[in-house]
Amino acid sequence: MIRFESDYLEGALPQIIHRFTATNFEQTAGYGNDPYCENARNMIKKECEAPDAAVHFLVGGTQTNMTVIAAALRPHQGVLAAQTAHIEAHETGSIEATGHKVITLSSDDGKINASQVEEYVLRHRADESFEHIVQPAMVYISQPTETGTVYSLAELEELSAVCRRLGLMLFVDGARLACALACDATPRLPDLARLCDVFYIGGTKHGALFGEAVVILNDALKKDFRYIIKQRGGMFAKGRLLGLQFETLFSDGLYYEVGENEVRLARKLKAAFENKGIELYYDSPTNQIFPVLNDEQIKKLSENYAFSIQNKVSGGTVTRFCTSWASTEANVDKLIKDIEGL
Amino acid sequence: MIRFESDYLEGALPQIIHRFTATNFEQTAGYGNDPYCENARNMIKKECEAPDAAVHFLVGGTQTNMTVIAAALRPHQGVLAAQTAHIEAHETGSIEATGHKVITLSSDDGKINASQVEEYVLRHRADESFEHIVQPAMVYISQPTETGTVYSLAELEELSAVCRRLGLMLFVDGARLACALACDATPRLPDLARLCDVFYIGGTKHGALFGEAVVILNDALKKDFRYIIKQRGGMFAKGRLLGLQFETLFSDGLYYEVGENEVRLARKLKAAFENKGIELYYDSPTNQIFPVLNDEQIKKLSENYAFSIQNKVSGGTVTRFCTSWASTEANVDKLIKDIEGL
Amino acid sequence: MIRFESDYLEGALPQIIHRFTATNFEQTAGYGNDPYCENARNMIKKECEAPDAAVHFLVGGTQTNMTVIAAALRPHQGVLAAQTAHIEAHETGSIEATGHKVITLSSDDGKINASQVEEYVLRHRADESFEHIVQPAMVYISQPTETGTVYSLAELEELSAVCRRLGLMLFVDGARLACALACDATPRLPDLARLCDVFYIGGTKHGALFGEAVVILNDALKKDFRYIIKQRGGMFAKGRLLGLQFETLFSDGLYYEVGENEVRLARKLKAAFENKGIELYYDSPTNQIFPVLNDEQIKKLSENYAFSIQNKVSGGTVTRFCTSWASTEANVDKLIKDIEGL
Amino acid sequence: MIRFESDYLEGALPQIIHRFTATNFEQTAGYGNDPYCENARNMIKKECEAPDAAVHFLVGGTQTNMTVIAAALRPHQGVLAAQTAHIEAHETGSIEATGHKVITLSSDDGKINASQVEEYVLRHRADESFEHIVQPAMVYISQPTETGTVYSLAELEELSAVCRRLGLMLFVDGARLACALACDATPRLPDLARLCDVFYIGGTKHGALFGEAVVILNDALKKDFRYIIKQRGGMFAKGRLLGLQFETLFSDGLYYEVGENEVRLARKLKAAFENKGIELYYDSPTNQIFPVLNDEQIKKLSENYAFSIQNKVSGGTVTRFCTSWASTEANVDKLIKDIEGL
Repeated sequence: MIRFESDYLEGALPQIIHRFTATNFEQTAGYGNDPYCENARNMIKKECEAPDAAVHFLVGGTQTNMTVIAAALRPHQGVLAAQTAHIEAHETGSIEATGHKVITLSSDDGKINASQVEEYVLRHRADESFEHIVQPAMVYISQPTETGTVYSLAELEELSAVCRRLGLMLFVDGARLACALACDATPRLPDLARLCDVFYIGGTKHGALFGEAVVILNDALKKDFRYIIKQRGGMFAKGRLLGLQFETLFSDGLYYEVGENEVRLARKLKAAFENKGIELYYDSPTNQIFPVLNDEQIKKLSENYAFSIQNKVSGGTVTRFCTSWASTEANVDKLIKDIEGL
Repeated sequence: MIRFESDYLEGALPQIIHRFTATNFEQTAGYGNDPYCENARNMIKKECEAPDAAVHFLVGGTQTNMTVIAAALRPHQGVLAAQTAHIEAHETGSIEATGHKVITLSSDDGKINASQVEEYVLRHRADESFEHIVQPAMVYISQPTETGTVYSLAELEELSAVCRRLGLMLFVDGARLACALACDATPRLPDLARLCDVFYIGGTKHGALFGEAVVILNDALKKDFRYIIKQRGGMFAKGRLLGLQFETLFSDGLYYEVGENEVRLARKLKAAFENKGIELYYDSPTNQIFPVLNDEQIKKLSENYAFSIQNKVSGGTVTRFCTSWASTEANVDKLIKDIEGL
Repeated sequence: MIRFESDYLEGALPQIIHRFTATNFEQTAGYGNDPYCENARNMIKKECEAPDAAVHFLVGGTQTNMTVIAAALRPHQGVLAAQTAHIEAHETGSIEATGHKVITLSSDDGKINASQVEEYVLRHRADESFEHIVQPAMVYISQPTETGTVYSLAELEELSAVCRRLGLMLFVDGARLACALACDATPRLPDLARLCDVFYIGGTKHGALFGEAVVILNDALKKDFRYIIKQRGGMFAKGRLLGLQFETLFSDGLYYEVGENEVRLARKLKAAFENKGIELYYDSPTNQIFPVLNDEQIKKLSENYAFSIQNKVSGGTVTRFCTSWASTEANVDKLIKDIEGL
Repeated sequence: MIRFESDYLEGALPQIIHRFTATNFEQTAGYGNDPYCENARNMIKKECEAPDAAVHFLVGGTQTNMTVIAAALRPHQGVLAAQTAHIEAHETGSIEATGHKVITLSSDDGKINASQVEEYVLRHRADESFEHIVQPAMVYISQPTETGTVYSLAELEELSAVCRRLGLMLFVDGARLACALACDATPRLPDLARLCDVFYIGGTKHGALFGEAVVILNDALKKDFRYIIKQRGGMFAKGRLLGLQFETLFSDGLYYEVGENEVRLARKLKAAFENKGIELYYDSPTNQIFPVLNDEQIKKLSENYAFSIQNKVSGGTVTRFCTSWASTEANVDKLIKDIEGL
């Protein structure tokens, strides 16, 4: 069975395992106060051209989202997000468990835009009952989104501008950020640092064993952030493991290379489905693709491949195939052959 | 200025003020442990034909909703409600502040139905990522709804049946329950007691100075409920004031009378708008009506009347006029005359 | 049975009931946006010599405490309080339910002092694991305390100074504030306004049917406070009832008069116990007194009087007798006679 | 610099790193639904002689504590713990952030006993204001405690008996459990499974890179536990890493061996301090020891060793030295020599 159902099915880049082995018996302080974390933080700040940023490392995405959002909001405030957003749909109410509402905006492709945000906020402010309605105070987007789509630099500029004009924070969930960085005309790391209040650089889905790097630009949010990490269960004892991984990912452009490879292989798959006349439900340029398959096709491909089954639509069932840092050309080519034979 | 913008603009039924005066210097135990509360609880249980119900009195609606829902749910559970539901739209995220998601179902008229609930719950259970999604564990409806519409007995029977089959609790917010009881074919109090796990009988909007009576039928929810009332700030020191009010409302059919009068006057207003060819945005049979007025009409009526301005729609602006226990025939007739003159 | 077990056993001052009656059919806007609340707010600001204060009215003490504290703290912050503090011991964990720890300081008499606060905060800051420990950010005291004792003006000055030097907020719970104002050398309202970040003036225990007036001095805490009131269930629909009560209490010095009378009667009782050689467990100059009675004495007094039974100590059982705005000279004299006959 | 300040300063047992390397390119399902986790769960159930237990793997201790406690308690319930307990003192209010109070019991040595628990619970139940006080519903202890002491089997039997008689849950935090298992007369794993409702087996401090294994015995707590893990941010994407580690720890008695070695080396250190006439502040038989050093001694030892500085006491400063799975005999002997030379 060759598995494409998600991008966290394998371990980590060999370089990372190697670093763990090489440093295994060293003694360093815990909780991120070690030289590897310090170095990784500096490398990321440099990569983001953001010397004043605060960089923190957490273990996983849900933990990161809830920690950032809990740290940012006052009790009566909520976070605007697409109705398909991960924090809304697939984190078991972790944001609500910190006391905050996720306020949803409609979206066909996983993205929301500046005018939706502006309209929502202005409507709230004009409502005579505004104090009876959760106050929108942050915008959450994913880059790429849960449906594989990406924000262009221009779109992010617009979102950022409207957030700043209205006094909202902008938070970008970059669980699969390397894939967005592999696309044309999308924001680079320095753009994210310039346009966001906070974003995170995903490691788990790009070759780390685990780990996400939070980059905080907004000074108010920097204050006491480590307390909140600890409170939410995210203060990792052997913190250097996170530093070692991000040092590795940001050495020799490895992080970008991982993203480019994931995207390249996914596009090969995408082309194969398209050539076969199979509809792709979302127009994703990144490492997740969503072919609409009929029952026959699902049955046939399931013999040798694992992939994710999503919702039924007219025309069949939306499925999801992901490439990962560990996907091999050979396995992708084998799948392409089988797609051609459907 | 004659005010119709809501139904909590005046004090209380004179009978209630009279009872406060008559008992003012009596000494009774606090926190609801007094003979007046005891008597009121018994009157309500009798009225509901539910001798085993637990009845508690709280001060207001938001407090009641958050106390009931926090008492009922485990941390990973959420409450299904119409997207227009009061807990979703007008309680400043009070449910989220207790840690729980409000899961919204679409609704044109403020109501949700049994098949929507069933579909949502079954889809959740079939989802391979079900543990990553908030578990629906309660259904919240308002009777009447925020748009003035009512559930028929048949509709409530269906909702109750689906909830029981699927193991969800059913909670009915009766902030304006007397108005629903004044409509044909709607559930009576014994029906609510038979079909719900918990519901509340609204006092604030039906002639009390303040107060809502929670009726709990589900044994699991009865346990330790007073702790939760205290924790959420709802344990009223001079509790007898709540008992005195509900004793009064349930003496001589006063509660029903108040609802009937509110509804009767609202329907007179409704007919006047209809006769004038003015659209009513929601087809409400209760004490809130929603005429769509143009700017000219709004300006003209605003000279002598206060009413609530809601959202813009094609054709004008949705407004809301409410009658209350204190609305007078004379004031309503005066407004009708002015509607005729528009 | 004559009851002295607490100070919320009767209704309200006749002047308040009269105001309710006189205004009962007036129509005013809800949620505190009415002329009576506006006037009461101005009266309180004047009384406090604090024209820039924000004044809000809530229904009860627990609700007020949790609303203020939830509004003030970030998630990792806690509130310092005496181990006997009401928020620690008698509010069913309402502060924790908003996510915050109550950090307790030891106290023999219900009071905490400036050096305890300073020592705790400095120890926290010097601890190498400070980020693993809740950050103290507010000091909560009650005036008078739960054991009837009062802070002198000098003591409050010291607490305020240390809070300001260390960057903590100071919050005074004034559920029984009128009794403290009736004592010598205690802070007056303008002192509280000058020295605190926020405090509340208790109505429920001083002749109101219900209601507490929160006075906010700290600008950061003023922002969006009404959202938090609504979220925590404290936005009272017929808000003018709160305004009417505080207008009345602050007319003609009525609030002070109530406190003076409560204190005067309590001191008569206290003297009677002392004359009889009965120990008073706390040295309370206010309306709560705590005689240590033996079983025989408890049995005898229980025949005609209700009072509160607290903990056992060597020498007997600590009991509590309270006077209220409605206590009569005749009833107090009758009790004194029976104390003399013990 | 040789470091003894904590037991999470190094990486992991070489056997674990080896397993990561050997399986690195395998594809397995995420979130703990893989064969390695399945096998590790079975090994632990067998080791505990608890075939019906539910076993879950989480990343760290704070995350585990807050997930278990949030899953177990209703909103008005709290957890009893020693005032020195990790959840009270060193987790930044993570329990309060889930809405629950930690109710502290006094303790000189980090342990609490059955009679303390019984007395607290009975006092609460007898209090006339019991509904105004957080309801104790769980007892939390650490084995070993934060001060290195251990509960004997007899003591745990007593605690368990009182919890069952009173209807409270018993939760044992086993962050350093291997060290307790290396002591005489302490509960074995099957004892813990028989006597507790839930406990966890610590990996992070016993040779794992990270990871704690929660063992749930109480059926009510098993239900939907994975939802709560996800909600609190603890659902680890590449879950097999946790399974691989616990498989390794429970192969060939490795877990016990690690604990025995940590304890053996710590006792050598302890004897050296004692021989030198240096007081040990707590009488710890496990891997943490607490010598009271004077400034001179601290200065001298600091030249070559890192250790933790705790509080000042009469006679000097309490310090902490920990041994870990990676401590070498040579380093310990070197330190002993330097202790002798103090």
